Amino acid sequence: MFQWIAFDADDTLWHNEEIYRQGRERFREVLAKYNPRGEVDEQFNEIEIRNLRYYGYGVMSFVLSMIEAAIQLTGEKIRAEDIQTLIDLSKEMLTTEVTLFDGARELVSDLSVDYPLMLITKGDLSHQKRKVEESGLLPHFQTVEVVDEKTVAVYEEVLERHQVDVDHFLMVGNSIRSDIQPILELGGWAVHVSPHLSWDYEDGDIQGDLQDRFREVERLGDVKRTIQSLQEKKIALLGEH
Amino acid sequence: MFQWIAFDADDTLWHNEEIYRQGRERFREVLAKYNPRGEVDEQFNEIEIRNLRYYGYGVMSFVLSMIEAAIQLTGEKIRAEDIQTLIDLSKEMLTTEVTLFDGARELVSDLSVDYPLMLITKGDLSHQKRKVEESGLLPHFQTVEVVDEKTVAVYEEVLERHQVDVDHFLMVGNSIRSDIQPILELGGWAVHVSPHLSWDYEDGDIQGDLQDRFREVERLGDVKRTIQSLQEKKIALLGEH
Repeated sequence: MFQWIAFDADDTLWHNEEIYRQGRERFREVLAKYNPRGEVDEQFNEIEIRNLRYYGYGVMSFVLSMIEAAIQLTGEKIRAEDIQTLIDLSKEMLTTEVTLFDGARELVSDLSVDYPLMLITKGDLSHQKRKVEESGLLPHFQTVEVVDEKTVAVYEEVLERHQVDVDHFLMVGNSIRSDIQPILELGGWAVHVSPHLSWDYEDGDIQGDLQDRFREVERLGDVKRTIQSLQEKKIALLGEH
Repeated sequence: MFQWIAFDADDTLWHNEEIYRQGRERFREVLAKYNPRGEVDEQFNEIEIRNLRYYGYGVMSFVLSMIEAAIQLTGEKIRAEDIQTLIDLSKEMLTTEVTLFDGARELVSDLSVDYPLMLITKGDLSHQKRKVEESGLLPHFQTVEVVDEKTVAVYEEVLERHQVDVDHFLMVGNSIRSDIQPILELGGWAVHVSPHLSWDYEDGDIQGDLQDRFREVERLGDVKRTIQSLQEKKIALLGEH
């Protein structure tokens, strides 16, 4: 039996990338007035990724990179009122209501009957906490971990702290890079939920030998059944009872 | 005996407010060119505190509020290059080397022999993690908690998670509001280290009936002795052995 099931939150249980997509659209609208120098999306993405080492993940990071990109793309012509628009945008994004994906509540509520559930999410601490509370899903989770990065080392630390054997640990998430790959590398199990929009940076490929402990599904509605099938595979592979 | 000793980090174990003080100085320099409308410090503080609900604590919050204040104080006249200066400032602040206070390393190292130590700090998750690692103190702490706010409810959750009885818990910190008051209210013990600069917002007063389980010291060098004296008081008060 899996001892713990963990979930990613943003873009796995609730909408997130859609809010960023709308943010980028607003950014392009603001810049359209200025005849920007260079490719708006490309330069913004580049600055955003370069700034991760300073700002980490989340809305504040996103908007600070946006302001920096706006200054560059307009050759320092952007006006203060337009920068204020970007600051207002950050506040809107930070207070956008949490919208669960179809089936999220049922899935989490169902699984919490049989497994202790963990939420593992990255980004602004205060924003993530607020979203978890607002989602109404908090009572189903035994523990919530807000981390700065989702690397092998970070997962290892979380699992150790909770004394979880990774071989009995399964992670459900939308991002190959952040939710799936590191867990498989550690020797855990993973279900990739893949229909939702996700940020390019989060994409990646699973190498052949890791595919055994891994499944992909299109809808949250298929996760429970898929966990059961991995459970059976685990028993077959390991001769467990 | 105290079962756990917890430490605040910023302005308790290492310099922090000094970095913000220098940041505010740079801000005044930038604005000086514009003949600002209104009191620079006052308006910035007001915006900063108003924005806590969106941005929480930390450098990104500080600089986003600074940009907003700059736009207001200049009547939207601030130029893009000066906003870039504020963004550059945020990156400098986020990568400023951690400088421990005198006696911090000895104190933490000494106490870790007799007590499990906990670090409880608030702010940007990724920045706080980096500072803890850079400080070299990490090996002395059994656990590190980065929280979004230091309220009674947040401390209660942390203590519960670690199954700590608050009556055997002592917190060392520089902020009455964040480190001392909530712990005393919960029924714990506290040592206030008070010589260092601290942000106005962090000040406060301890009410009479909470003073019994509380001491103030001027230097980290006095903390160990003070913990011992509180320990004796605890034994006397509670008839403990």
